[in-house]
Amino acid sequence: MSDVVIIGAAMAPFGRFPERPLTDLGVAAVRAAIKDAAVARSSITAAFVGTQSGGSMIGQRIMRQCGLPAIPVVNVENACSSGSTALHLAIAAVRSGVHETVLVAGLDKLSHASGTLPRHSDDYEGSLGLSPPALYAMRAQRYLHDYKADIRDVALVCVKNRRHALGNANALFRSEVTVDEVMASRRVADPLTLLHCCARSDGAASVVVTSAARARAIGAKAIRVLASDLCSGRYMPGFRDLTSPEITVRGARQAYEAAGVASKDIDFAEVHDAFSIAEVLYYEALGFCSRGEGIPLLKSGATTLGGSIPVNVSGGLMAKGHPPGATGVAQVVEAVEQLRGRAGSRQVEGAKVGLTHCTGGGVSGLDHGACTIHILAR
Amino acid sequence: MSDVVIIGAAMAPFGRFPERPLTDLGVAAVRAAIKDAAVARSSITAAFVGTQSGGSMIGQRIMRQCGLPAIPVVNVENACSSGSTALHLAIAAVRSGVHETVLVAGLDKLSHASGTLPRHSDDYEGSLGLSPPALYAMRAQRYLHDYKADIRDVALVCVKNRRHALGNANALFRSEVTVDEVMASRRVADPLTLLHCCARSDGAASVVVTSAARARAIGAKAIRVLASDLCSGRYMPGFRDLTSPEITVRGARQAYEAAGVASKDIDFAEVHDAFSIAEVLYYEALGFCSRGEGIPLLKSGATTLGGSIPVNVSGGLMAKGHPPGATGVAQVVEAVEQLRGRAGSRQVEGAKVGLTHCTGGGVSGLDHGACTIHILAR
Repeated sequence: MSDVVIIGAAMAPFGRFPERPLTDLGVAAVRAAIKDAAVARSSITAAFVGTQSGGSMIGQRIMRQCGLPAIPVVNVENACSSGSTALHLAIAAVRSGVHETVLVAGLDKLSHASGTLPRHSDDYEGSLGLSPPALYAMRAQRYLHDYKADIRDVALVCVKNRRHALGNANALFRSEVTVDEVMASRRVADPLTLLHCCARSDGAASVVVTSAARARAIGAKAIRVLASDLCSGRYMPGFRDLTSPEITVRGARQAYEAAGVASKDIDFAEVHDAFSIAEVLYYEALGFCSRGEGIPLLKSGATTLGGSIPVNVSGGLMAKGHPPGATGVAQVVEAVEQLRGRAGSRQVEGAKVGLTHCTGGGVSGLDHGACTIHILAR
Repeated sequence: MSDVVIIGAAMAPFGRFPERPLTDLGVAAVRAAIKDAAVARSSITAAFVGTQSGGSMIGQRIMRQCGLPAIPVVNVENACSSGSTALHLAIAAVRSGVHETVLVAGLDKLSHASGTLPRHSDDYEGSLGLSPPALYAMRAQRYLHDYKADIRDVALVCVKNRRHALGNANALFRSEVTVDEVMASRRVADPLTLLHCCARSDGAASVVVTSAARARAIGAKAIRVLASDLCSGRYMPGFRDLTSPEITVRGARQAYEAAGVASKDIDFAEVHDAFSIAEVLYYEALGFCSRGEGIPLLKSGATTLGGSIPVNVSGGLMAKGHPPGATGVAQVVEAVEQLRGRAGSRQVEGAKVGLTHCTGGGVSGLDHGACTIHILAR
C-alpha cells in the first residue's frame, strides 16, 4: 500500500450562474488543479467525479474538454458526500497501486433547481414532509430542550462563518450578519430561520491525488492523506437520538484510528454546516468537545479563526455556499491551502493537521446516509 | 494483486413494473445474489451500485434493507455502463486488496420515464436531435451504403435475440418475431423501425465478488474474472467513422491483452445490442469477424445458439430489456450461469470463456462515452 498525497487543488468560485453550463465550472476547476499540481496530463490515468445533479456522464464531458478524452472516468453520487466519495475512491486507487496519479472533481449546479427534490416512491420520510430543514429543526428543538440552550447562541455559527468568508474570494456570501439579523430572517422550520440554513449554489472543485513516491520524484509540494473514511448509516436514527449523528461519530472514530491521531491533534476542521445546529452537533460528534458542550465551545471563540480549533474558516457551507457534489472536494481544497500556508487573511497559524467532514442523507430518504471524513497533514 | 472471482449472481426479471418501487427490484436481486454466493453478510465490506436514474443514494437504501446498513456504499453513474462500471470498481477493490468480498448491484426503472431525457445545457448533439436512435440510424445508413448490405438482413439480429429469449424466464419479450414483422413495425429513424430498437424497461441484477483465495477457503463455486476494462472516448467520432465504435475497438484490445486471450478464444458473448445495427458493428469491433463481415457472420448462424460464437443467448437488450444500470450486471449474471453450465435450454455447450460488453454515451452528449468489457472463465 502506497502513502497517498494531494499535489494539486483548486476550485471555481461558488455562486449562482444560471446562464453558465455546469461543465464550464468543472473544466475551470480541473484545469486549475492540474496546473497547480504541475503534472503532465499524460500521467493522469483515471478520474473520479462527484455530482448529485450534474447529469449523465458529465465527468467524461469535462475530462475530454480538459485534454483527457480516453482515461476511465467514474461518476459518483452520494448526495452531499458525492465529491468526497469520489476523493475516497481516488485515494483507495492510489493507495492500492491500481493507479498512480488520478484526478478528482466535484461539482453541482442548484441555482436553477426547484424547491422540491425528486423522491423515491417508497420515501416515507419525504412523504411526511421530513425535508432536511425539517429534520434539522427537530434536531435543534431537541438540542435546545436537552441542554437548556438558546437558539440565539446557535445563530453564532452563522455569524462566525459569514465573518470567516470575508477572507474567501471563492465564497458566495461575503458580508457579515448579526444574531438579530439571523433571527429576524424568514422563518423556515421553527426554530430555524433562513440564515440558519446554507444556500443552494453552483460550483466545482478539483484535486490531483498521487503516491508519495511519485510526488517526491517530481518534487511536488505534497499534502499527506492520513485517513479517508466512508461509511453508511442511519441519518436520522429513528428519533432515538436526534442530537448525536451516529455515522459521524462512527466515521470519526474510524478516521482517527486510521490516521493515528486524536481529536485534540486536529488544528482546524471544515465540517458540514448545512444548518447552524449541525455544526454544533458535529463539534460533539467529532470529539472537539463533550456532548452538550457545543454551545460553550462556540461561545468561547475556540472554533473562530484564532481559536484553538477553528471550524469552517473558509466560510463553510453556510457562507461559501453548498453545491453538494463540489462541497466535499472544496473542503479539501481549503485544507490543502491551509496546510500549505497559503490561506492569506484566513490562515490558521501553524496548521499541521486538518480534518474535513461531509455527510448527508439521500436527496430523499433521510433514514439512511453516508459520511466521509478525511484527515490531511503537511 | 489477488485473483478475482464471482461467487454469486442473480437478477430480478426485467419487465415493466410501474407500481413497484425500484428499491424492491434491487433488494430482490441483492438478496438472491447473497443467497447464491452462500456468504455471511458480515463478510461483505463494501457495495458498488450502478444506476442511471435510480435517484440519490438508492444503494444505501437497498443495502440497509438487505441487512448491510453500515458498509461503505458508492453509487455510480456511467449511462448504459453504470452497472458494469460498478462491477469494474468492485473487481479493482478486491484485486488490490482494499476489500476481500464486495457486493455489486445494477438497477434502473424506465417504464415511467418520459420520452425526452434531461440534457446538458451545452449538449449540442441533443439540441440537433441526435438521440441514440437517430445516431444508430445514421450508423446503419452508412453501414448499408459501405457494405452493400440489406436492412432486412440487419433485422435478423432482432429475430435471433427474440428467439434466444424464449429460453430466458427473466426476459421482457418472450415471443418470436419475423423479419417482415420487424420491418413492418413503426418507423423510428430510417432505416430503423421500432423492433430494431431495444425497449426501455425496469430491472435489477447483482453479483458477489471476492478473492480466489477466499472462494477456495469457503468452497465456493467460483467464476474467474480474467479482465475488467473501462475506458472513455468519443461515442460518435465526429462522423469520421460511423461504422467503427472506437471505444469498443480499444476496450476490446485492452481486455484481450489483460486476459491473455484472443477473440477466437471467446465461447460466447453478451454484447450491447441497443439497436440491431449495433450488434453487427460490435461483432466487428470485438474481433469476431473482420470489418464488413458482420452480416455474413450473422446470416451464417455463427452468432446463434449452437453456432461457433453465440451472441446474446440471454436475448440481449433487444429481447431481455434494457434498464441501463442493470444491463451490464445482468450480462455478467448470464455469463456466470453459462460458465456454471446452469443456463438450461439456452446453454452454450462447453462454454469455458465468455465476454460481456456494455457501452454508451451520456443520456445527453453522444460525442463522449464509456465502454466496459469483462472476460470471465470457468
